[in-house]
Amino acid sequence: MTTAELELTTARTSAQSTSATMKALIYHGPGKCAWDDKPRPTINDPGDAIVRITTSTICGTDLHILKGDLPAVTDGRILGHEGIGVIEQVGAGVSEFHVGDKVIISCVTGCLKCDFCRRGMYSHCRHGGWILGNTIDGTQAEYVRIPQADGSLYNFPPDGDEEAMVMLSDILPTGFECGVLNGQVKAGDTIAIVGAGPVGLAVLLTAQFYSPAAIFMIDLDDKRLAVAKKFGATTLINSADGHSAHHVMELTAGAGVDVAIEAVGLPATFGICQAIVAAGGRIANVGVHGKPVELHMEKLWDRNISITTRLVDTVTTPMLLKVVRSGKLQPRKLVTHRFAINDIMKAYDTFRNAAKEGALKVVLTNS
Amino acid sequence: MTTAELELTTARTSAQSTSATMKALIYHGPGKCAWDDKPRPTINDPGDAIVRITTSTICGTDLHILKGDLPAVTDGRILGHEGIGVIEQVGAGVSEFHVGDKVIISCVTGCLKCDFCRRGMYSHCRHGGWILGNTIDGTQAEYVRIPQADGSLYNFPPDGDEEAMVMLSDILPTGFECGVLNGQVKAGDTIAIVGAGPVGLAVLLTAQFYSPAAIFMIDLDDKRLAVAKKFGATTLINSADGHSAHHVMELTAGAGVDVAIEAVGLPATFGICQAIVAAGGRIANVGVHGKPVELHMEKLWDRNISITTRLVDTVTTPMLLKVVRSGKLQPRKLVTHRFAINDIMKAYDTFRNAAKEGALKVVLTNS
Amino acid sequence: MTTAELELTTARTSAQSTSATMKALIYHGPGKCAWDDKPRPTINDPGDAIVRITTSTICGTDLHILKGDLPAVTDGRILGHEGIGVIEQVGAGVSEFHVGDKVIISCVTGCLKCDFCRRGMYSHCRHGGWILGNTIDGTQAEYVRIPQADGSLYNFPPDGDEEAMVMLSDILPTGFECGVLNGQVKAGDTIAIVGAGPVGLAVLLTAQFYSPAAIFMIDLDDKRLAVAKKFGATTLINSADGHSAHHVMELTAGAGVDVAIEAVGLPATFGICQAIVAAGGRIANVGVHGKPVELHMEKLWDRNISITTRLVDTVTTPMLLKVVRSGKLQPRKLVTHRFAINDIMKAYDTFRNAAKEGALKVVLTNS
Amino acid sequence: MTTAELELTTARTSAQSTSATMKALIYHGPGKCAWDDKPRPTINDPGDAIVRITTSTICGTDLHILKGDLPAVTDGRILGHEGIGVIEQVGAGVSEFHVGDKVIISCVTGCLKCDFCRRGMYSHCRHGGWILGNTIDGTQAEYVRIPQADGSLYNFPPDGDEEAMVMLSDILPTGFECGVLNGQVKAGDTIAIVGAGPVGLAVLLTAQFYSPAAIFMIDLDDKRLAVAKKFGATTLINSADGHSAHHVMELTAGAGVDVAIEAVGLPATFGICQAIVAAGGRIANVGVHGKPVELHMEKLWDRNISITTRLVDTVTTPMLLKVVRSGKLQPRKLVTHRFAINDIMKAYDTFRNAAKEGALKVVLTNS
Repeated sequence: MTTAELELTTARTSAQSTSATMKALIYHGPGKCAWDDKPRPTINDPGDAIVRITTSTICGTDLHILKGDLPAVTDGRILGHEGIGVIEQVGAGVSEFHVGDKVIISCVTGCLKCDFCRRGMYSHCRHGGWILGNTIDGTQAEYVRIPQADGSLYNFPPDGDEEAMVMLSDILPTGFECGVLNGQVKAGDTIAIVGAGPVGLAVLLTAQFYSPAAIFMIDLDDKRLAVAKKFGATTLINSADGHSAHHVMELTAGAGVDVAIEAVGLPATFGICQAIVAAGGRIANVGVHGKPVELHMEKLWDRNISITTRLVDTVTTPMLLKVVRSGKLQPRKLVTHRFAINDIMKAYDTFRNAAKEGALKVVLTNS
Repeated sequence: MTTAELELTTARTSAQSTSATMKALIYHGPGKCAWDDKPRPTINDPGDAIVRITTSTICGTDLHILKGDLPAVTDGRILGHEGIGVIEQVGAGVSEFHVGDKVIISCVTGCLKCDFCRRGMYSHCRHGGWILGNTIDGTQAEYVRIPQADGSLYNFPPDGDEEAMVMLSDILPTGFECGVLNGQVKAGDTIAIVGAGPVGLAVLLTAQFYSPAAIFMIDLDDKRLAVAKKFGATTLINSADGHSAHHVMELTAGAGVDVAIEAVGLPATFGICQAIVAAGGRIANVGVHGKPVELHMEKLWDRNISITTRLVDTVTTPMLLKVVRSGKLQPRKLVTHRFAINDIMKAYDTFRNAAKEGALKVVLTNS
Repeated sequence: MTTAELELTTARTSAQSTSATMKALIYHGPGKCAWDDKPRPTINDPGDAIVRITTSTICGTDLHILKGDLPAVTDGRILGHEGIGVIEQVGAGVSEFHVGDKVIISCVTGCLKCDFCRRGMYSHCRHGGWILGNTIDGTQAEYVRIPQADGSLYNFPPDGDEEAMVMLSDILPTGFECGVLNGQVKAGDTIAIVGAGPVGLAVLLTAQFYSPAAIFMIDLDDKRLAVAKKFGATTLINSADGHSAHHVMELTAGAGVDVAIEAVGLPATFGICQAIVAAGGRIANVGVHGKPVELHMEKLWDRNISITTRLVDTVTTPMLLKVVRSGKLQPRKLVTHRFAINDIMKAYDTFRNAAKEGALKVVLTNS
Repeated sequence: MTTAELELTTARTSAQSTSATMKALIYHGPGKCAWDDKPRPTINDPGDAIVRITTSTICGTDLHILKGDLPAVTDGRILGHEGIGVIEQVGAGVSEFHVGDKVIISCVTGCLKCDFCRRGMYSHCRHGGWILGNTIDGTQAEYVRIPQADGSLYNFPPDGDEEAMVMLSDILPTGFECGVLNGQVKAGDTIAIVGAGPVGLAVLLTAQFYSPAAIFMIDLDDKRLAVAKKFGATTLINSADGHSAHHVMELTAGAGVDVAIEAVGLPATFGICQAIVAAGGRIANVGVHGKPVELHMEKLWDRNISITTRLVDTVTTPMLLKVVRSGKLQPRKLVTHRFAINDIMKAYDTFRNAAKEGALKVVLTNS
C-alpha cells in the first residue's frame, strides 16, 4: 500500500469520530448489565466499518444472555445484534460502503468469501456468523465495529423508516428464512405457526408472501393471538388446554397441516408440530432449543415429511428490502414500545415482561 | 356397458387361467407360515389385473411380518410385495396393460387419481399405498391380483433380466427415493450410508448416479462392508467399536458429511447420523423405525440441516428402468441366492440368517 | 365383468338422460357456425363421463378456430373447452366421480397414466391433451362427453360460484402455469406482463400469489390498462408509441425486469420481452404464436436468461381451487358479460368485439 | 491504517518481484499480436493479487479476438483468461490468499459483494465478470494482476496436476454450468450435444456426473466424433448430410431428446436443437452467437420447453475441484498439445488449425 492509499483510508473517516469513549449496554455476568462508558471501537481489519447507531432493538436472545444461558458471552461484552446507523469510518478493504452511508446492520456477519458464504450460509461463515453482541461487542451502544462490513451491512433505503427497517436486522429474515422458506410455504397451503411471539409473528407476516389458504396460529396468550388475527392469521388456537394438536387435526379433517412452524424452542411445542404435520408436509424449526426432543420416528418414518433447522443467514435481506419498499410488508406493526437509548434499562424491563406489557418489539433511539 | 363391451372384457382373459387354486406363502400369525393352497385371485374391480408370478423375492419387511411386528397383517394373508410376472386378466378400466404383457410389479399401489398420487406420493395413495402382502394378498404365490394396475405395473423391458428387474419392485426405488433423492446427493458430495444391508447397498448403487466424491459405508459386518467396497464405497467404517461417528469426523476434518443416510431403523444408527451431519447437510432416513429417537435439537437447531422420512413412492421406477437399460446400474449384483418357488421355506431360512449365509437378496423362481 | 357389475354401471346413469338430441354450437368451416341440434353424447370408453353443462365461456382460441386458423378442427365439431356442469353418466373405469356430482371441466384432458401425465404434463397426454372443442366435441352445448374423466374433472366446491369457477377451466391455470410458474415469479421481483387481455389479466391476478414488488402492464388499449390497474398492476405502459421497451428500461434504471411474460403471441410483443429481460431473468411465453420470431442470441447468449413455452397442463387446478376458496383470488373479476346459452351467437359477437365492448370474459348460462 | 498494518502489507510481497518487465502475448489489432515485453503488473486496488503464471492455455475466444471480432479488446491488451500460477503479491483487502499460494485463475472475476455475485452470477459481477484478456490484461504472460482476487482464485489442490487443473479456469465450468446444469441433465435422460469441439467435449465429460442413459454427439468432423466416443458418447451423428435432426428423431422414435445442448454458436446448430428437443425438454445454449436465430415459436409455443443462455459464472469451480480430486473427472484428456510459453505463436498456429492438427486444448508452460 502506498502513502497515497494510506491517506485515502484516513480520509475515509468522518470528522465526528473524535471522542474516545461512548455509552453502551455492558454485560457483567448472569443477571448483571449496565449502561456505561466504554472506549469507542476502532478499525481492526481492512474489512471493518465503524457505525454510529441511530436505532436499535432488543431480541429475546439478549434476555437469554442476561440470564447466563450463553456462556460464550463474557463479562464486559456489549450486547445487541440489531441496529440502524451511519458509517463513521471504513477499512481499506471495504468497497461497497462509504463514510456517511446510512445502513441496516445484519445480525449475522458474512465474509462472502468462505465456502459457507458462497453457499448462502452466512450463519456459518468461517470469519463471522452470529458474533455481534455475542463473541464481539454489539449494537446496544453509541458505536459499533462491524467486521466484514461489505457482507454485513445493507443500504438504508432513501424512503425508509428506521423503526421498520431495524426489523430487517434479525427478526424478519429469521422468520422468513427459517420458517417460511425452509417450510416451503406455497399458495393454497394450510400452515400452522406454533408461537405468536415476535418471531412467530414475523413468520406470519412473511408467510403471506406466498398466499397460503389457511394460517393457524397457536399460542397460550390470547392477547398475542389477537395480534396474530390482525396480522393475517385465519384461525386462532389457544394451546392452554393441551389439545391444540387435536384441534388442528379436527380442523383439517384428520389430514394435518402442510407446514408446521415451531417458533418457541421447547420439546412440547416441537411435539405439537410432529403431531399435526400432514403426510408429505414440512416441520420448519425457528425456535432456539436448549434440550433434546423426542422424535417419533416410529410414526413418522413412512410419512414423507421433512424437518429443517436453521440459524438465519440473512441472505434474503435484499429481497425483504424490496418487499418492504413495495408496501406489501409493514414491519412497523411489530413495534409496540419506544425508548431513548439512555432509557435502555427500562426498555429491557418492558421487554422482559412482554406478556404483561403487551410488548412485541421495543425500539431504542439514539438521538 | 354394452354386451359387446362385456365380451371384450371377457376376451381380455388368457386361456391359462382355468384352474381354481394355486400355491402361495400364507401367513398364519407370528412365527407361522406355510406354502399351501389358496384360491386363485379374480378381478374385483375394473382397475385390477391378475398376474402370474414368474420371479419374486423376500424383503426384510417380510421377516418383520413373520415375527408379528405388523399387526395389520392377519392370518391367511399371502406375503410378498415384489415380483415379475405375466398378465393373465385385466379389468375393464385397465388401459395401459394387456393380457400377455410381462410386467414388473411395484411394491406400492398407486391409483394415480387421488391428491397424493397427483403429487407423486403413491406411498400415501388413498386407494393404495403399500397394501400388497400387507392388507391384501401378495406376490409370493403363483398368481396375484394387482389393484390399480395402470399405476402399479411397469412394462418389463424386451432385453430385461428377471433377477435384475425384480430389484425394481422395491429395493432400488426405496434406496434411491428415500436415501439418494431425499438426501439430495450432488456431484462432489461426501456422503455416509449407515447400514450395508440390501437397502443400504441399493442406496450405495443409486447414489453413484450423482457422482459423490466420497462414500463412507458404516456397518457392523465386515463381510457386508467388503461387498460395499466392490459396489463403490470409498471408505469402510466398522461401527463395532462404537466410535464410527468419531471416525467420520476425523476423516472429514471435523466438518461432517453432506448427506447421512440411515438404512437400519434404530435409535443408535439414527444417532450416528445426527453426530456426523455437516452444517447445511441432510439426514435422509430409509430405515423402518419401531421406537422414538432422541433428536438433539439443542445441538442441531442452528446447524441448517434437514431430516427427511419417506415410504417409497416408486415414482422413479421409469427413470430407474432407463438407467438399468443403459447399463449404468446393474441390480443383479444384489442377488446372492436363488431358489425355486417351491423351496420358499428354505429361501426364508437363508434370508433370515443373512449374515451367516452371506445373503443379500434371495430370488424365487416360478418355473 | 360379472352381470352384477354390468348392472352397477348401468345404475350409474341418472334418470335425466333420456332425450336423444341436444343444442350445441357447431362449427361448419371458416367463418361459419350455428347453435343447432346434435345427438347427445354417450359413453364410448370406460373412462368417460357425460356432463350436463350449466355454465360455459368463450376463449380467444375459439375465435381463432372460427377464422379457420386451426385446420385440425373440422366441420361438425362442437366448440368450447371450458365449463361447469353436472355428471349425468360415468363409465365403468371412472372411480373419482359419480352421477350427480357438480364438476369443473378442465380444458386439458389427462389420462394420468401415460409418461407425460406422470410428469405433470397433461397437456401432452398420450390419450388426451387439448382435445375438447378441438379434435372431439366441446362444451358449448347442453351435454359433453369428457374422456379420462378422473383426470379431467374437478369437484365443484360446495360454496362455489359458477362464474368464478369456470375461470378455472382454462384461463387461470393458463396464466398461472405458463406465465407465473414458468416465469418463477418471486417475492420482491419486478415483472412485466405484455398483453392485458383476459389471459394477461389472469397472469396479473395469479402473479400476486408471490408478492412481486412491481408489476408493469403493457398494452395498446388504455381501457384494458385501467382494468389492470384495478387488478393490481403497479405501472401501466401504453405501447402504442413503439417505445414500451425503452420506458421499461428507464423505469428499471437500465436493469430490465426479472420476469417478462408474453401474453399476446406476436413477434413484436415477444420482441419487447427480449428487449426488457434483465440479466438472469426469465421470459415466460403464454401467447399462441403463428409465426417464427427473431431471437437475438447475439445479445442474449451471455445474459443468463431462460425462455419457456407451455401449453397449460392444469396440474395446478387443485391449488388454484384452494386459493380461490381462501378468498385470495377472485376470478369473478374477469367476467364482464353474461348471456343465456341460447344467445351464444350474440355472446360471440360481443367477445369478438372485445375492445369496443369492453369485454373480458363472457359467461354463458344453461338454465 | 496503522504503520504496522502498512508494513504487514509490504511484507506480503514475495522477494521475487523485483524485475520491472515481463514477456506477454500482446494484441495489436485484428490479425496482429506479438510475444513481447510489457511492464509487470502491480497492485492497483486492495482486492488485487499479482500471480506469476506457470501454466496457461488458449481459448476459442482468443482466436475470435485476434480476428477482431471483439472490438472491446484494444491495441496493447495482453490476451488469455485461463491459467495456473503462484501468488507474488496481495493487496490489503485480500484475506483468503497469501504470497506463495499456488492458484487456479478463474476466467470470470467476481467481487462476491454485488447483487449479481450474491445470486451466484459472477458472470455479471458489477466489478468484474469476464474482463481478463478482454478489458484488462490477461494470463498469456509471465505475470497477471487478478482483481477481486478472493472471488477469482481457487487454491490449487496439493495433489493436483497443472494440465488438468487449468481446464478448471474456463472450459469445464463453461460446459458444466451452461450446458449440463442449465440443461438439467438427469439420470436416465437422452441428451444431444451439438458440437464436439473442446467445450462440447467438456459438456460431454461433465454431463456424465448425472448418468444420462444416452448421449448423442453431433458434429461435422469424424475425428472429433471419435474422441467423443472415447469420452463417453453413446451415439455419434455426423451432421454433414444435413439430416442430423432427422436421425435423432428416428433414433428416439419421434420423441426427440430431453436435453439439446448447443456448443457451436451458429443459427444452423441452434436450429438442430429446436428440431430435436422433446416436449418438456430443454435447449441449453453454450455457444457464442454473432447473429440472431429464427425461433420457431409457431411450433414450440405449446411444447413446454425451456431455452437457456449463460455466460459461465464459475460458481461450480469448488464442486468441480472435488469431482476432479475424486478421480471421477479427468480433464487432462482434453489436452492434446503442449508448448513452452516462449513458443506461444506456434501454439496459436496449432490451435487455429485444430481440425488438421487434431488439437483440442493446447497447454502453455512457463518454466
